[in-house]
Amino acid sequence: FRKRCLRTLFNSVYVILVLIAAVVTYSMVSDLIHSMNNPVHSVHFDKVVEYDAPGEYYYYIISCNFMFYYYYYYFFFFYRQLDLENRNCTFSEVSYIDPHYPNLTRDALVVRGPTSFSKREAIFLHFELEDNTRDFFTVSYFVFPEWDSFNISLDRGAELVNYHRYVPTFALSAGLRMWIKLIMSEKDMFDGSKVTDFNVEYSVVRFYDRRPPDVSNTTHLFFIFFEWKNDIIERSYLIYTTTPWSIGAGLCGVFLTLHRGFQIAQTSYRRVQKDKQRRSIRKRTLRELRQLS
Amino acid sequence: FRKRCLRTLFNSVYVILVLIAAVVTYSMVSDLIHSMNNPVHSVHFDKVVEYDAPGEYYYYIISCNFMFYYYYYYFFFFYRQLDLENRNCTFSEVSYIDPHYPNLTRDALVVRGPTSFSKREAIFLHFELEDNTRDFFTVSYFVFPEWDSFNISLDRGAELVNYHRYVPTFALSAGLRMWIKLIMSEKDMFDGSKVTDFNVEYSVVRFYDRRPPDVSNTTHLFFIFFEWKNDIIERSYLIYTTTPWSIGAGLCGVFLTLHRGFQIAQTSYRRVQKDKQRRSIRKRTLRELRQLS
Amino acid sequence: FRKRCLRTLFNSVYVILVLIAAVVTYSMVSDLIHSMNNPVHSVHFDKVVEYDAPGEYYYYIISCNFMFYYYYYYFFFFYRQLDLENRNCTFSEVSYIDPHYPNLTRDALVVRGPTSFSKREAIFLHFELEDNTRDFFTVSYFVFPEWDSFNISLDRGAELVNYHRYVPTFALSAGLRMWIKLIMSEKDMFDGSKVTDFNVEYSVVRFYDRRPPDVSNTTHLFFIFFEWKNDIIERSYLIYTTTPWSIGAGLCGVFLTLHRGFQIAQTSYRRVQKDKQRRSIRKRTLRELRQLS
Repeated sequence: FRKRCLRTLFNSVYVILVLIAAVVTYSMVSDLIHSMNNPVHSVHFDKVVEYDAPGEYYYYIISCNFMFYYYYYYFFFFYRQLDLENRNCTFSEVSYIDPHYPNLTRDALVVRGPTSFSKREAIFLHFELEDNTRDFFTVSYFVFPEWDSFNISLDRGAELVNYHRYVPTFALSAGLRMWIKLIMSEKDMFDGSKVTDFNVEYSVVRFYDRRPPDVSNTTHLFFIFFEWKNDIIERSYLIYTTTPWSIGAGLCGVFLTLHRGFQIAQTSYRRVQKDKQRRSIRKRTLRELRQLS
Repeated sequence: FRKRCLRTLFNSVYVILVLIAAVVTYSMVSDLIHSMNNPVHSVHFDKVVEYDAPGEYYYYIISCNFMFYYYYYYFFFFYRQLDLENRNCTFSEVSYIDPHYPNLTRDALVVRGPTSFSKREAIFLHFELEDNTRDFFTVSYFVFPEWDSFNISLDRGAELVNYHRYVPTFALSAGLRMWIKLIMSEKDMFDGSKVTDFNVEYSVVRFYDRRPPDVSNTTHLFFIFFEWKNDIIERSYLIYTTTPWSIGAGLCGVFLTLHRGFQIAQTSYRRVQKDKQRRSIRKRTLRELRQLS
Repeated sequence: FRKRCLRTLFNSVYVILVLIAAVVTYSMVSDLIHSMNNPVHSVHFDKVVEYDAPGEYYYYIISCNFMFYYYYYYFFFFYRQLDLENRNCTFSEVSYIDPHYPNLTRDALVVRGPTSFSKREAIFLHFELEDNTRDFFTVSYFVFPEWDSFNISLDRGAELVNYHRYVPTFALSAGLRMWIKLIMSEKDMFDGSKVTDFNVEYSVVRFYDRRPPDVSNTTHLFFIFFEWKNDIIERSYLIYTTTPWSIGAGLCGVFLTLHRGFQIAQTSYRRVQKDKQRRSIRKRTLRELRQLS
């Protein structure tokens, strides 16, 4: 009876060890799968000396005369600081079909964005619109990465349609000075692609019109600045919290420990068995000796 | 003397192994606790076909006539594109007591927000206010999730008070067209709850009033649009960088290695002991042989 | 021949085990380096009872009369709610040289920011400017942390120059009411330093000027509010997804397992060798017996 009891104990230890191995393996593998499905973004805030020039894109919901960079109305107090006349601005004009309203052809102006924060490079745009039949005078715009690759592209219209479909558009208003600060972030996406996002923060300043009423009622003015908010790009990389290697190594450790536990159980079981055998042999020997004597 | 030296060596090896085990265990357990207290957000950017309708909530700091959707002033150039007349808008009126100023009763208008980005669904609200005694004409608003559950709720006032307490409120201005883009994010919080956040980005466009001065001085107009910025929801899940399983598995590996190291030290110690015994036995035997001869 | 074959097999097992050890070690160490170079931010959203007072800093691109807190134009409907007269506001005036335009001396006003969200503490600033030669009337501002340490500093000018160099500046506009909501976040940086960031969200409301034209054309008014958006600080800590300890523990597990595998291979190789020896001994014995008989 005691022998059967011991064997049951030994077997149950074995079963428990196998169960522990199964539970641990299951938990660690499900941890691994969970962590593989939920990678984490490691965000680096990198200083840049010079940005790649972004493109800035405008389309006229209204028709307007574009006067660019070299002209502005009356008296402009940033004049002396920004030294506008001595700078150049690159732009191109493109027309394409709106992806959201297929029967609408858009005439767009695409401007090369600023590249340097440290030199406080700002793109200043000044539009003038003659119209007195509307309540709102707006120019829509969006920002897209890589002006340079856009500029040498053969089908600029198709590229703009593509951007227009996905990139959020914003409105610029006549009668307000919009000072737009660009913020750039780059992200590794789950599908392996890389995405460049632009965020904008802007300050709005009211325009005080001091022209005579007959002009100010028919000619509306836009004042738009673009510059970088700071010299920091936010780059985020995907990181997995657990890797198959570490899970594999962990499982090695667990299995070995259980194997070792099993060995110890086996050894002690055998020792007990041997002790019994010895004891029974000794008993038998003693009995035989007694019978002999 | 050499024997004592050897024993000391052996004991010190043992002590070192125990110390290593203690240090490793402490470090790994403190890593685990640190990682358990600092879970990390795994952010997924998921495309949605249709959003759940959010609620948009307005309260009048001023009294005003509300004209909704089917009426707007004069000439509105978005008319043709947005096809306003053919759409329906769901809303409800609620009055409740302000949680921040207990002696103030608010009359609020709650509107069902847009759901579809791909169809460019926009909620357009047009308010008219007759008043010429103020310097600022504003409507406050906030956005909250789940219009549908709000709409079937029995005590809408209590729900609004609850939102009003925690959700940031913003101001809409007369004389400006506010085009508000909604951005939604869902977060798993540390306490196990789920939080839906709304961010707004807006474009401000100045309103050019071309009504006769006696009207434009007393009747003020609000133009408000709500739409989704894009079809992407940011969902973030809490992830632990380390789990008890992996720490346990790692400790198994370390302990086993130390155990193995101890065994090797023990074995070599015993071998040295045996060698000595043999050598001393051999010496004794040689001495006895010499004495015999 | 069979013996050589067996030895080759045993050696190749040995080589394979060593190769596995090398590959696993390389992978895990490169995982470790990758994770050490890409720490992850653990973001906590902590409720605060009271904020440390931030500093708010204004500089006049224009000259203007500053009228602070106790005076405002005409009729102001927030009057009763905010109880402006009974509150105090701390400020200091500093002049320093602009870091971006070295020949420009700035006269700045630095104001102690709000600290309590729950009491809806708001800083209200009212500026008045007499000038009719400009198109835009703006006040630039930025927000910096720790008013208190700034206030007791000996060289406030140097501190402001330092902030001015790195902190983004925004513009406040005359003729608009700017209601600015502060959002604070604290970040552990890679280099061990701690950075406090301020984000601002603002609501713009148009100012309806009902003063007589000869006054409203020459005297321009600024209305600026600062308050906290909510009582939540975003604190982010750097977390490493893998630590040297866990990699070390994992390697322990892997090496032990390979060691164990090597032992088993060795044991079985020896057993085969012994079996062969025994068999050959038995054969020899049988042959000798046959020769004897």
